[in-house]
Amino acid sequence: MTDPTTDLLPVGLEDRLQKSAAAISRARRAALDAMDSYGYDRVMPPLIEFERSLAERMDGVATRRMFRFVDPASLRMLALRSDMTVQLGRIAATSLADAPRPLRLCYAGETATISSDQLDPSRQRLQLGAELVGADGVAAAAEVVMVAIVALEAAGATAISVDFTLPDLVDTLAQDELPLDPAQVDAVRRELDGKDAGALKAAGGAAYLPLLYAAGPFDEAIARLSEIDAGGALASRIDGLKAIAAKVGDRARITLDPTERHGFEYQSWFGFTLYADGVRGTLGRGGTYRIGGTEEVATGFSLYLDALVGSLAAQPARDTLYLPLGHDIATADRLRAIGWRTVTALEEGEDPTALGCTHRLEGGEAVRLS
Amino acid sequence: MTDPTTDLLPVGLEDRLQKSAAAISRARRAALDAMDSYGYDRVMPPLIEFERSLAERMDGVATRRMFRFVDPASLRMLALRSDMTVQLGRIAATSLADAPRPLRLCYAGETATISSDQLDPSRQRLQLGAELVGADGVAAAAEVVMVAIVALEAAGATAISVDFTLPDLVDTLAQDELPLDPAQVDAVRRELDGKDAGALKAAGGAAYLPLLYAAGPFDEAIARLSEIDAGGALASRIDGLKAIAAKVGDRARITLDPTERHGFEYQSWFGFTLYADGVRGTLGRGGTYRIGGTEEVATGFSLYLDALVGSLAAQPARDTLYLPLGHDIATADRLRAIGWRTVTALEEGEDPTALGCTHRLEGGEAVRLS
Repeated sequence: MTDPTTDLLPVGLEDRLQKSAAAISRARRAALDAMDSYGYDRVMPPLIEFERSLAERMDGVATRRMFRFVDPASLRMLALRSDMTVQLGRIAATSLADAPRPLRLCYAGETATISSDQLDPSRQRLQLGAELVGADGVAAAAEVVMVAIVALEAAGATAISVDFTLPDLVDTLAQDELPLDPAQVDAVRRELDGKDAGALKAAGGAAYLPLLYAAGPFDEAIARLSEIDAGGALASRIDGLKAIAAKVGDRARITLDPTERHGFEYQSWFGFTLYADGVRGTLGRGGTYRIGGTEEVATGFSLYLDALVGSLAAQPARDTLYLPLGHDIATADRLRAIGWRTVTALEEGEDPTALGCTHRLEGGEAVRLS
Repeated sequence: MTDPTTDLLPVGLEDRLQKSAAAISRARRAALDAMDSYGYDRVMPPLIEFERSLAERMDGVATRRMFRFVDPASLRMLALRSDMTVQLGRIAATSLADAPRPLRLCYAGETATISSDQLDPSRQRLQLGAELVGADGVAAAAEVVMVAIVALEAAGATAISVDFTLPDLVDTLAQDELPLDPAQVDAVRRELDGKDAGALKAAGGAAYLPLLYAAGPFDEAIARLSEIDAGGALASRIDGLKAIAAKVGDRARITLDPTERHGFEYQSWFGFTLYADGVRGTLGRGGTYRIGGTEEVATGFSLYLDALVGSLAAQPARDTLYLPLGHDIATADRLRAIGWRTVTALEEGEDPTALGCTHRLEGGEAVRLS
């Protein structure tokens, strides 16, 4: 017999039931509170925008993954947001164009895509993040990495590691130090990203081969990168990475993968990926960038907490107090005010334990159910 | 010159900027915590479902107001949720079909409609509510009204009033006490709802005229309703309303409008509408009903907090501590841990006040900025 519920929701969309909803709700609040404590103000963009408005701040691939539909009111094409970063950029560039910089904003909300990657079939994801608008230097990068770590810790992540990358590495080196024909740049970048030494040589990037070995734990990897950078084109970037690592290194394990590019197509000099113990895949990424359609710089990160929450140990059942028929209302109000969760009897003969209760109100006292 | 930002978002969709986002976020958390304290477990249904699944649990009018689109994966029609109550009903009837009853669930999330009514052009609304599944008696109704009031109070509403109605009033009276031809029932119901005495007579409902005067403050209105109900067909309903009013009457002003029907088409014997001081229109409604597609009864309510939050006084600016360059990290961590909100200096020459700071860290102490 087939499960009658399997066809109730489209593939990749699901209900979060009580335990899972409680866990993600708790993680989300804690992460938002952490961002708030670092001075990031929350903004809430809408679920739906003009497709063009979302698209012109994103790459073409991403827009094809959005749910799109015609607006009967304007007859223009709308889209369900697949990423909130572009919405934050729009807000910074329009409604908050005149707000003092640096501008610290944060957000949390559901996003949806038509199809997801094969490793993760989900089509709806809770995205949460922070943007430091008007700054993309070392201090901004160090702050944003720290806030990302603190937000993840608050959400329950343990043994966090942060992988740094230099998204414009090839462009920087190709200018002078390891010159490339402009036609070769894309291919070299791609093969470095794919870590394919043979293809890298074939693409004319033999000189870039040593970069593949400048990856791993931060201290050793950055030393190797310095050796490669004999001409000093990367000197300021290397110093920047060292300064960031020095500021956040005691809160997370830092690694370097300078040629990592996937997911950082729109970052400028600095990018980072977040991992945590027991969570498969990345928990989020961030970096420095230029806000789409503007000249303004920013540094930010996005987190996806669903994977994290799935890895967290189940919380113990909470104490819950059964209030029998005829209980004193004032007593119940007082107990809720000091933190009790209550379940009120509707009729005789209920089984408080089956209803999740751990205690029962008897003579004005909470008595543990046996 | 036109405002360049006005065309950035489709009509009826807007950004909630810092103050408004903080206010609604605070109200939402407080309302969710209030529902939780009464034993309601949160569930999170997805933004999108099969249109048919949402539609078969709603009336046809409502489904025409949903944003709909074809799912490239299934080639079936999907819809963006316009109401979460139907999603809760689906969950109760499927995944949680075997959970013990009464089942207490709550929810909060964004919903969207293609077009809204003319009084309120917004096409996205934060819906928040609770469902008591498996019970629709007086005890259930009293609990649900109380939880709605407590949730609204927690969200910041003051001088809450609750308007009771009897959605199946005409059907009940028409059976015997004030007999109507089956063909007349709909018209009588409609004219009573419209409070149009002339049309009511014309529709053959002259005997129902006195009901129009059984509205107002609860005690007087229910006394008049009892007088009208000489045959006693409404006796159990009247007793039920009195019992509910007795339980919640010291937390809110109670009124009765027994013929109010609009918005209660799918409620059974009991419905209620919520109002608060300074908020135009309703803040929410609820009542007893049968879960669509099932035989199971339930009692619940939905709140829409946007209107409330717009009416709340602005919160005072929060204390925020500026951390100058070179500040002690451990001190900053300690101050955040005890509740300080901080803004970290990125460079010399920033204006802490312009960045929203009220204090500055000097020699390990928070000093108020003058």
